Amino acid sequence: MKSVTSRDNPFYKELKSLAASSQARRKAGRTLLDGVHLCQSWLALRGAPAHCVVSEGALRNPEVAEIVARCESLHAHVTGLPDALFGVLSQVEHGVNLLFLVETPAPRQPQSMTVSSVLLDGVQDPGNVGSILRSAGAAGITQVFCSAGTAFCWSPKVLRAAMGAHFVLEIFENVELGALIDRSGIAVLAMSGHARRKLYEVDLRAPVAWLLGHEGQGVADDLMGRATHQVVIPHAGQVESLNVAAAAAVCFFEQLRQRGA
Amino acid sequence: MKSVTSRDNPFYKELKSLAASSQARRKAGRTLLDGVHLCQSWLALRGAPAHCVVSEGALRNPEVAEIVARCESLHAHVTGLPDALFGVLSQVEHGVNLLFLVETPAPRQPQSMTVSSVLLDGVQDPGNVGSILRSAGAAGITQVFCSAGTAFCWSPKVLRAAMGAHFVLEIFENVELGALIDRSGIAVLAMSGHARRKLYEVDLRAPVAWLLGHEGQGVADDLMGRATHQVVIPHAGQVESLNVAAAAAVCFFEQLRQRGA
Repeated sequence: MKSVTSRDNPFYKELKSLAASSQARRKAGRTLLDGVHLCQSWLALRGAPAHCVVSEGALRNPEVAEIVARCESLHAHVTGLPDALFGVLSQVEHGVNLLFLVETPAPRQPQSMTVSSVLLDGVQDPGNVGSILRSAGAAGITQVFCSAGTAFCWSPKVLRAAMGAHFVLEIFENVELGALIDRSGIAVLAMSGHARRKLYEVDLRAPVAWLLGHEGQGVADDLMGRATHQVVIPHAGQVESLNVAAAAAVCFFEQLRQRGA
Repeated sequence: MKSVTSRDNPFYKELKSLAASSQARRKAGRTLLDGVHLCQSWLALRGAPAHCVVSEGALRNPEVAEIVARCESLHAHVTGLPDALFGVLSQVEHGVNLLFLVETPAPRQPQSMTVSSVLLDGVQDPGNVGSILRSAGAAGITQVFCSAGTAFCWSPKVLRAAMGAHFVLEIFENVELGALIDRSGIAVLAMSGHARRKLYEVDLRAPVAWLLGHEGQGVADDLMGRATHQVVIPHAGQVESLNVAAAAAVCFFEQLRQRGA
């Protein structure tokens, strides 16, 4: 393990920049995974990180010590920081002061959709995007396509909310959803509170693409028009709409139910 | 409309205190509703607020002007504030500077559960609690019982996430869930990732109580043991658990589906 003790160390400065700014993460093509759960998930699903960063105090935590040992056995770089230097790197209050620096996965976008997928059109809230990724991963969906206006998937809040689902998914960002829908090999179901076709009337046993929109405005009109069907989750009661992440979960698990999970 | 221009005005100080502190809201039995949507919902579902508070600039917004006029026609107090004074009262960035002060609804807790209900055992995140309330309201559920460790339902974040669902629900806080479960007139279904009984195997056409637990630890063991059934949402894929609000939505809408909505 190396030790960094100066705030002027270039690697420490890189970490600080990646911790504070999604722009820096996008530009560098690298991201930080914060905390034991995300780091354990990465190790289990993707192997060694580019770099493991740990505060001196955190090494006394047996879970952290085990992760660090695993990283060393995989020949990953490990760097220790004084607790005071680590503090500004983490957004997790009372966190354990463990980070992985990883190359942001950049899977090659397929020409067309052939497996059940999620399309996010301008979903803004990082907590919603993270919850949708988590539900997708739990429902066995493997591909997620995001428009340019959707929250950056590799930001700390999205990563935290998705609880490691990122690492079982192929996530494509800045996607032209209109073109993707036009050449889709599977049905595209646009979720809308105003649609007439009810979710439970749609045969979901074949792969489908779920198109979900902005928290306030919903799916953009031009995308709505290109979808195979517009679909509503039937409601009872005076509340007329669901949170987009709640709606996503209802859809993904209705598909799983129909497929006889 | 009255005008308040001094930071030392007692009513303004009360507003500041209610805006900043859940403790103050609990103690006063009063809460603030922030923004056009919540205020419109309150007017539609509960009638006049105790007090309508608006910034001078916001009166130029036609939606706000209409709400203010409606409050005046209902003989509610209306107070105007300079924009600078209003600023600290709202947690909504780029909001419209409209607040209702209302008496926090305090419905009398029924002796036992007889209609479909939600039981929240230590759900911590205000966004999750709000999303659960919203989904419950949309699914036609009318009663929500919260343990003392659950996020305060009348906090700004929970109110914002629930989008007015509070006003169609009866919300009971600081409830001894164990005693409530023991005298329940309906089946209590404890959601657990470790249960064997699958959600889709349970007959949900009769009223049930959904018991949902803490984001990390789930439902407490003693409550789990008192429930009628422990139930799992079947998964596919490597992600093993859902966000609690996503799980709640799946449950509530599976019940609605079985009831033939």
